[in-house]
Amino acid sequence: MCDTSTIKPLNTPLKSVPFTNVRIQDRFWAPKIKINREVSIPISFEQLEKSDTIRNFELAAQGKHEGYSEPLFRDSDLYKAIEAAAYSLSTDPDEAMESRVDEIIEKIAAAQMLDGYLDTYFQVLHPDKRWTNLRDAHELYCAGHLFEAAIAYYKATGKRKLLDVAIKLADHIERTFGADDDKRMGYPGHPEIELALIKLWQVTGEQRYFELSRFFVENRGSKFFATEHNTPLEAYDGIYWQDDVPIRDHNEIKGHAVRAAYLMAGVTDIVAETRDRGLLDMMARVWDNTTLKRLYVTGGIGPSAHNEGFTTDYDLPNRTAYQETCASVALMLWGRRLNLLTGDSQYYDAVERALFNGFLAGVSRDGTLFFYDNPLSSYGNHHRSEWFGCACCPPNVTRTLASLGEYLYAVGKNAIYVNLYVQGSVDVEINDTTVRLDVVTAYPWEGNVAITVHPSNAGEFGLMLRAPGWSKKAEIKINNTPVNPEKEKGYLILNRNWREGDNVELTLDMPVIRLEANPLVLEDAGRLATQRGPLIYCMEACDQTVPTGSVILPENADIKPIPAPEGLQDVVALRGSGLTIQTGKWDNVLYRMVTPPARVQVTLIPYYAWDNRKPGAMFVWLPR
Amino acid sequence: MCDTSTIKPLNTPLKSVPFTNVRIQDRFWAPKIKINREVSIPISFEQLEKSDTIRNFELAAQGKHEGYSEPLFRDSDLYKAIEAAAYSLSTDPDEAMESRVDEIIEKIAAAQMLDGYLDTYFQVLHPDKRWTNLRDAHELYCAGHLFEAAIAYYKATGKRKLLDVAIKLADHIERTFGADDDKRMGYPGHPEIELALIKLWQVTGEQRYFELSRFFVENRGSKFFATEHNTPLEAYDGIYWQDDVPIRDHNEIKGHAVRAAYLMAGVTDIVAETRDRGLLDMMARVWDNTTLKRLYVTGGIGPSAHNEGFTTDYDLPNRTAYQETCASVALMLWGRRLNLLTGDSQYYDAVERALFNGFLAGVSRDGTLFFYDNPLSSYGNHHRSEWFGCACCPPNVTRTLASLGEYLYAVGKNAIYVNLYVQGSVDVEINDTTVRLDVVTAYPWEGNVAITVHPSNAGEFGLMLRAPGWSKKAEIKINNTPVNPEKEKGYLILNRNWREGDNVELTLDMPVIRLEANPLVLEDAGRLATQRGPLIYCMEACDQTVPTGSVILPENADIKPIPAPEGLQDVVALRGSGLTIQTGKWDNVLYRMVTPPARVQVTLIPYYAWDNRKPGAMFVWLPR
Repeated sequence: MCDTSTIKPLNTPLKSVPFTNVRIQDRFWAPKIKINREVSIPISFEQLEKSDTIRNFELAAQGKHEGYSEPLFRDSDLYKAIEAAAYSLSTDPDEAMESRVDEIIEKIAAAQMLDGYLDTYFQVLHPDKRWTNLRDAHELYCAGHLFEAAIAYYKATGKRKLLDVAIKLADHIERTFGADDDKRMGYPGHPEIELALIKLWQVTGEQRYFELSRFFVENRGSKFFATEHNTPLEAYDGIYWQDDVPIRDHNEIKGHAVRAAYLMAGVTDIVAETRDRGLLDMMARVWDNTTLKRLYVTGGIGPSAHNEGFTTDYDLPNRTAYQETCASVALMLWGRRLNLLTGDSQYYDAVERALFNGFLAGVSRDGTLFFYDNPLSSYGNHHRSEWFGCACCPPNVTRTLASLGEYLYAVGKNAIYVNLYVQGSVDVEINDTTVRLDVVTAYPWEGNVAITVHPSNAGEFGLMLRAPGWSKKAEIKINNTPVNPEKEKGYLILNRNWREGDNVELTLDMPVIRLEANPLVLEDAGRLATQRGPLIYCMEACDQTVPTGSVILPENADIKPIPAPEGLQDVVALRGSGLTIQTGKWDNVLYRMVTPPARVQVTLIPYYAWDNRKPGAMFVWLPR
Repeated sequence: MCDTSTIKPLNTPLKSVPFTNVRIQDRFWAPKIKINREVSIPISFEQLEKSDTIRNFELAAQGKHEGYSEPLFRDSDLYKAIEAAAYSLSTDPDEAMESRVDEIIEKIAAAQMLDGYLDTYFQVLHPDKRWTNLRDAHELYCAGHLFEAAIAYYKATGKRKLLDVAIKLADHIERTFGADDDKRMGYPGHPEIELALIKLWQVTGEQRYFELSRFFVENRGSKFFATEHNTPLEAYDGIYWQDDVPIRDHNEIKGHAVRAAYLMAGVTDIVAETRDRGLLDMMARVWDNTTLKRLYVTGGIGPSAHNEGFTTDYDLPNRTAYQETCASVALMLWGRRLNLLTGDSQYYDAVERALFNGFLAGVSRDGTLFFYDNPLSSYGNHHRSEWFGCACCPPNVTRTLASLGEYLYAVGKNAIYVNLYVQGSVDVEINDTTVRLDVVTAYPWEGNVAITVHPSNAGEFGLMLRAPGWSKKAEIKINNTPVNPEKEKGYLILNRNWREGDNVELTLDMPVIRLEANPLVLEDAGRLATQRGPLIYCMEACDQTVPTGSVILPENADIKPIPAPEGLQDVVALRGSGLTIQTGKWDNVLYRMVTPPARVQVTLIPYYAWDNRKPGAMFVWLPR
């Protein structure tokens, strides 16, 4: 592992606590991270091999001009897989995995051109077309993912080879794009490099990378893509690429969902340094639009398959919900950055909603199958796949799970922030004290969290415990004595001269919540969703005794947690008293006069856990 | 008008009563037929002019080889418009309309080739490709519509010009296709000519046309289209064209909806003559599958836009319901034929459901705008159009409305059948007696029907009154005396020695019915539809005091007929006591904990009448 002490932190009020300082030892995430490491990450390299994604680099290194395996952004899939492996190696060294990655890095390095350029699609198929189609060709996007992978691997192993490749490419890009007379206009059709350049700046200290990121952000909306493609301005809308209006003029989240949220994550990083009021205000408007009008109850974004993105306010179809797994990742990246920038826990409510629901559904329980799109209802024919031709989602899942620890804690001015309650421990530097927190909890299944504080020296600092938006009651005891802390921006403030072994007990009330959607969400008319803790639940056919289409869950139904149904052993399910119209004769009857429904037991499971057993229908929103 | 006495009736137990014997004088249909005559039919000729559909014939007549206006089945749109005009001229002579049609017929006749071939697409663009792509090119489909138009115009005016064109083309086709050694295999990709050839056989007495129709029907399913397109059999499924299995082996309605039901209508005509058991059994299976598993509550068929057709049992999405207007027409054509063949009123339940709902929604109240697809819910962005590039639906509406009378009555062995209750009168020949029935009713708004019988000589015969499937109680008085008639195949049997002026009063109970769908129809889970008489109702935004997405209609809601809301003056609406979640604060709230809903008045209008006022959301199936 490299010495990361030289890495410049972003100028946010809260600082991220690296996942390498966090140990996850619970029964919810720890097994998932283990499966991620032992199954999903190795699978991703196998699939990247099988799909000739790695071979693309060999072709480029050999100067070949045919045989490239499309689509044109394949490089980024490999980079993300390396990033995931790097995170995993940081917490769980694995010689075989490391040497596999080293071999791949040799191939990547061999493919890089003398001038630093690296994109195997163009090198193999269109060497004369470099940087001619920023709108569609993903060169800058792939570069961004290379930077992230390289930084992750450098931090994990101390090995600079991939980082040097990244820097060489970044320098090439920085020589090419910019405001200077000898540079050209441009920005990526698919944002990603913005936040990656920020990371590269942090690692290298090279201000040029920050300025390049800023250049990409600031120029977005100048309708460069119209120029690039000779599109008359009157025929160009640019919405898909967030290129329709100057960056400060956005009022809504729009276009391709992953692009939109990656862009906003990058903008947040810029704002952390510049405190640009126009960008800050824009982000506040766009965040509000996202979470108040365009967010699935499962925390995902982007309802439409057509543009992999946004449509109009309150358009949140269930069966055709796209809610791409990558878009949930993107929202988490953005929300976490906003939390660090503002110290406001509301952003974590969205992050947590996405993490435990829309995101986590993206991978099967055994780590072998992945969702690209995540509908909120299914008639039984939507299932996870081993891999995708467009394979952005699986390595986005693996890199997020492998570095999940970074979502848990933050450090503010003389305060430690706990954002997600996960059993395990963390080491935090605060002032001149090292503090270890030991956390014991069965979250998200139970709402009790015990935190023991181990400061290297007794000292006064704040312990800021996030009161999740879903929880209406949070009780605190310190050393067995109830306290009634003040709240600030959604955090319970425990200010105190902490001593070795001080114990905090947080009890979050965790009732079954029934949610209704704004009436403008026409898809959810007459329906309710169920939630317990951060988990959104759903009804899956295999748990029911009657057809799913016959079930009504009255709004006053008594619903209780129960041990998991078969096949979902470590899961808390819900059971409630519903109604069913599966009464009388339905053979050869398509429509009949309504009859009084009968009582039926309805079983609900967490949304993330669906499609892990017998295929069948699934509904998040149930008739009430 | 020509002497139609030589027209051979089909050998069905019930005989059709021509619409020319029927006078419609009610306040429901009569105004619609008037608007159809005065607005929609003239509009159709204007649109066919504007779209260069008529010019295509001029190009063909002039031997031109460019300038054809696509799509390739444009000829059929014109033929259907002529058919509609002909029906209208039969009941309401109109010199201007007739001379307009005469002019067009001159152009059609001029376009016909010496060998009888007529299809302007091929004549203009691909004269060397005649009959090379039966699967896609619609030549036989267009020919069928020419036959129907020609017969209609001949019956209406006695003018043979178009009929002679039709016969010349039919003879050309008959010389080309058939089982004889000098003829070739083939059948239409889009069925229609089958039933048209039957009509031509009836008018001309030429058995060859019947045999050709039978040839097309019998060979369907031999996978000729695979041969035609060099598709390997293992790669060919043929379902879209009902060409996947031999004609007697179908168990389901499948593929393109209009094609499927036109085909079945043609098969029914064949069966009427041949009494082929295999075809009869197949039709019974396919009809059951259609009406018990694949029929919208509005009587339409074909849920999917993808194939303009069928998917799987119980797949009846609402917002994306395709339910093409033409498919409702096709179902009516088929159902009416099955009724004549079997004397069973169940087929008319489907015909009536389609006619008053899925079909009738196809045209705006003012006759100027048309629906192609008819969803069962809308978020406010689905509206009728002036015309379509693919303009099959508007002239299908006009030809059906102009000949609506033929749907009302039938004559059986010593019995008159009344299938639809429409104020007006009919002349029926039964045995050697001419019987006039005078009907007074406000159907479908009210369930009272008064029929006065005027036989030319007193005589014993049956009056068979259809007891609609939606009516649970039908009371009869004859000359003010209650009677309790027996029922046969859904008809109330009034056998009697009828004398001049005998009066029958039928009272159909017409409560508001709440329907629930089979639980396997997942789209309708937790929802109910409302019906009164044959009319399916819907909730349209402009009639509500709260957002449509907030409304729940409890299954025990009190719902009553009320005078029409503004803008729908001649319509009976429904009003009921519903619930709304439009309580408390919803600004900047996307999801909230469920709250007890409040009472709200909900207004429902007939489905057919939606989208005639302010644009807005619409739902047939309401949360219960």
